[in-house]
Amino acid sequence: METKGKFKTDIEIARESEMLPITEIAAKIGLGPDDLEMYGKHKAKLSFDCLAKLETKESGKVILVTAINPTPAGEGKSTVTVGLADALNKVGKKAMIAMREPSLGPTMGIKGGAAGGGYAQVLPMDEINLHFTGDLHAITTANNALAALIDNHLQQGNELQIDARRIVWKRALDLNDRALRKVVVGLGGPIQGVPREDGFDITVASEIMAVLCLASSLQDLKSRLSRMVIAYNMEKKPVTVGDLGVEGALALLLKDAVKPNLVQTIERTPALVHGGPFANIAHGCNSVMATKAASRLADFVVTEAGFGADLGAEKFLNIKTRDAGFEPAAVVIVATIRALKMHGGLAKNELAVENIPALKAGFANLKKHAETIAGFGLPFVIAVNKFITDTDLETKTLLDLCEAESIPASLTEVWEKGGAGGVELAGKLLGVMDAPSSFRRTYDLSDSLEQKIEAVARQVYGASGVDFAPKAKKQLADFEQNGWGVLPVCMAKTQYSLSDDPVKLGRPSGFAITVRELKPSIGAGFIVVLTGEVMTMPGLPKRPAALNMDVDEDGNAIGLF
Amino acid sequence: METKGKFKTDIEIARESEMLPITEIAAKIGLGPDDLEMYGKHKAKLSFDCLAKLETKESGKVILVTAINPTPAGEGKSTVTVGLADALNKVGKKAMIAMREPSLGPTMGIKGGAAGGGYAQVLPMDEINLHFTGDLHAITTANNALAALIDNHLQQGNELQIDARRIVWKRALDLNDRALRKVVVGLGGPIQGVPREDGFDITVASEIMAVLCLASSLQDLKSRLSRMVIAYNMEKKPVTVGDLGVEGALALLLKDAVKPNLVQTIERTPALVHGGPFANIAHGCNSVMATKAASRLADFVVTEAGFGADLGAEKFLNIKTRDAGFEPAAVVIVATIRALKMHGGLAKNELAVENIPALKAGFANLKKHAETIAGFGLPFVIAVNKFITDTDLETKTLLDLCEAESIPASLTEVWEKGGAGGVELAGKLLGVMDAPSSFRRTYDLSDSLEQKIEAVARQVYGASGVDFAPKAKKQLADFEQNGWGVLPVCMAKTQYSLSDDPVKLGRPSGFAITVRELKPSIGAGFIVVLTGEVMTMPGLPKRPAALNMDVDEDGNAIGLF
Repeated sequence: METKGKFKTDIEIARESEMLPITEIAAKIGLGPDDLEMYGKHKAKLSFDCLAKLETKESGKVILVTAINPTPAGEGKSTVTVGLADALNKVGKKAMIAMREPSLGPTMGIKGGAAGGGYAQVLPMDEINLHFTGDLHAITTANNALAALIDNHLQQGNELQIDARRIVWKRALDLNDRALRKVVVGLGGPIQGVPREDGFDITVASEIMAVLCLASSLQDLKSRLSRMVIAYNMEKKPVTVGDLGVEGALALLLKDAVKPNLVQTIERTPALVHGGPFANIAHGCNSVMATKAASRLADFVVTEAGFGADLGAEKFLNIKTRDAGFEPAAVVIVATIRALKMHGGLAKNELAVENIPALKAGFANLKKHAETIAGFGLPFVIAVNKFITDTDLETKTLLDLCEAESIPASLTEVWEKGGAGGVELAGKLLGVMDAPSSFRRTYDLSDSLEQKIEAVARQVYGASGVDFAPKAKKQLADFEQNGWGVLPVCMAKTQYSLSDDPVKLGRPSGFAITVRELKPSIGAGFIVVLTGEVMTMPGLPKRPAALNMDVDEDGNAIGLF
Repeated sequence: METKGKFKTDIEIARESEMLPITEIAAKIGLGPDDLEMYGKHKAKLSFDCLAKLETKESGKVILVTAINPTPAGEGKSTVTVGLADALNKVGKKAMIAMREPSLGPTMGIKGGAAGGGYAQVLPMDEINLHFTGDLHAITTANNALAALIDNHLQQGNELQIDARRIVWKRALDLNDRALRKVVVGLGGPIQGVPREDGFDITVASEIMAVLCLASSLQDLKSRLSRMVIAYNMEKKPVTVGDLGVEGALALLLKDAVKPNLVQTIERTPALVHGGPFANIAHGCNSVMATKAASRLADFVVTEAGFGADLGAEKFLNIKTRDAGFEPAAVVIVATIRALKMHGGLAKNELAVENIPALKAGFANLKKHAETIAGFGLPFVIAVNKFITDTDLETKTLLDLCEAESIPASLTEVWEKGGAGGVELAGKLLGVMDAPSSFRRTYDLSDSLEQKIEAVARQVYGASGVDFAPKAKKQLADFEQNGWGVLPVCMAKTQYSLSDDPVKLGRPSGFAITVRELKPSIGAGFIVVLTGEVMTMPGLPKRPAALNMDVDEDGNAIGLF
């Protein structure tokens, strides 16, 4: 994301940073050895006893970090999340982080690591980017155990009369593996199972990931697992995990994965890094249990949501906070000058040169997201995440544009300077939080699914309306009849544009959103609304990052950056 | 395996047992906090520093626990392994265990747990049977990352000219999932990959499991990974992981999995539980790194090998100890009266009634395995693992049969009594180890593959000879030409019979072994010799054990037994 070469890489910075034993980090927030389940010296899970103890404590303020529509130029949302928490601690506040844990698939593919960057990282960066505490492996296992149990049910007499053509539960791996997108399973004759079409998603796209991230407890997790729709029977009625009777086994497989993971930043800010669902077919936020635990352990919790504010923040506000029963205190919208210039019409290779007109044009994207957050009734600050190629004039222009619109904004340099680079942002944020806020959501749960979709499209995307494809129309009726109309909607839209067309950057207008299909995620507790093709199993590039990875004789990771 | 009902179940006994913190167990064998990487309070990995430190220490005696040919009646080899080590400690010796870690697939299917039984268990039984320290998940991930990289190579131009019809690397999951045995991947059009036939093995059947278990260090692991054959090119030459250039990434994924896991028995004997390859298409023993580390930490290491002595012990002695460069001190052969009665011709439902003629007939199976171990020049003792339905006359008859053949034997009651039930066995074992031994293997590495196979078939199985199918004959020539003739052979034969016909119980004679096909496991360092169909992906039964599994509100496992 950030320029390498003259700067140290993330893994170099990470390795030079001396971590405290996680027991000492825990002690800073009042947790003792019995509150922790250790995974090595620098990672720990919060025990069920600890989580139960926290339930009764008063809650601190939750600050959401979101962003403009992402571009290939990068915005650095996780980096700002980490740096802002470090900065809040630097100015004497008691702050923690609650953020998503990375998926291994993209790490092996293009991205390298995903735990912040520069001097605003969570550590141990290598462990967090590899197996961490095994949460994703547990989800993969539960996902595929369920798939095996479904196919076994077909093979052993199909008592539930599952229609093998209408099994909606897919298999999953935490890898980028395009060859598994569409497969045929059960080949080889009668003792090898029932042949049928199937496919694999990347693990973070499994409904179990969304379920784990929205569960309020182990028991709630089990109830949600039980409600997941796995197939339709010969009468086209939904068949659930509860019908199969295996929610107990799945919950058993997930009993440790559901506990939040405690780690630290380079500046030793405590961070709960836990869960990481897709931000299109799911809600894109770390676990409710992590956010809630953090809010009981600190006065300020900095958390993030996936993609831009049109997807991540909308779902954080309309799905996660509603389900979990809390209200955020403020929002930070991350933007970079490079990304705004792309929204203003430049190509990626034109970004290194100063271009004020493009910046001014691209500002429209940021302005729309600011309006959206204001529409939720929440105080907010723009974080202009500094990049090496930004010119002084560009920076001044952007800050002036914000000021002209009375939008509070601050230049942040947390990538280069850690918390010290976010002190001004922290100050402005504390300032805007003094004003009284009046949080309101985009729709009520009592609205119909159609009304909910319309509300998000118009208010959050700026669309002129919504077109429903024939299949979606029929599903709207079916879903209301199944009793699913009371659920919130989870919009699966391209992250690159406010519209459903990824090439319409900036602030498009006069567009309608086309809803192609709906998908029930009843365990998670939302209806996924598909507005286009969503890739739920990425592929690897021609030269995967894996080719550069290695491990030295002492067990140190090489090639994660 | 053992009668439930009037007795407590394994999980009940396990939960009633109070564990010591693993740091205290470690302290008993001279290890400090820096030698350990904690996974909760009761599991730890030995650090690379610790392993390096142990390299120079003197080695204790290694005792192998093996068994007669297994039957559905059960033998309790793991139970005796645990109980014997407990007993050795009880009589004042310093003993440890090195044993395999269980696979999750069978746990979800039929078996329930696999960490010993009764009062001879390793703890925490529930954790060990679920995700443990994530070793199997890391192997699954590495296995499937490699598969994804191979398919990506095909998709991105196929520089290595891999023949998509001759890719021998399969995908893997640690589940029983018959529908994945034979699949077609890469469907859906040109951007979804190259369509081809594929299949999934259970993770313990992955060559990476065998590689991890035979590796002497992280660097050796990487070298072995590099040598694994993944496919053949258009000229039918083998293509390896090294050709693809991803051994570093795979080693990185396995850097923690390669470290042995320290746990404790109910009687607080230290146990390294690490690795668990198949005992047919692989060598069926826990990791070399665990066995070696244990032998430097204790005066006696009790270890085990899969299935009966014809498979497990043969491979332990001809593959593992040769590769790792050590000699065992003694062998224990486990038998039960029930299983011998099945070898004597009874059906499973006839075992509860006293039947001396059947026992006498079935003794032939035990006698053959005793002869085999004697043929290796090793001292041994028979462990008659007591079962509730055994009559006094049956027990006396079996011990008399042994005595008549001058075979040392001891009744063990470790399931019911823990170490106290194995004191007599421990005493006899210490006695036979006093005599000088002259260990010799079945074949030399300089023998041809054909000679090696013949030697095992005649000396270990008692076969009259070996028939090679035409395909195998051609492969023998090809493999010798590839330079693979210097490797040991890893026989994949039914575990139920000394012959390659699973219904020939007891001690069959006058049979030939048919070799159907060979398979190179060049990373592991052996040639797999297939004598029949080997199931490398189990299926689930009509009522999987998963249906009884659950987790209570405090996170305790239910239904693992």
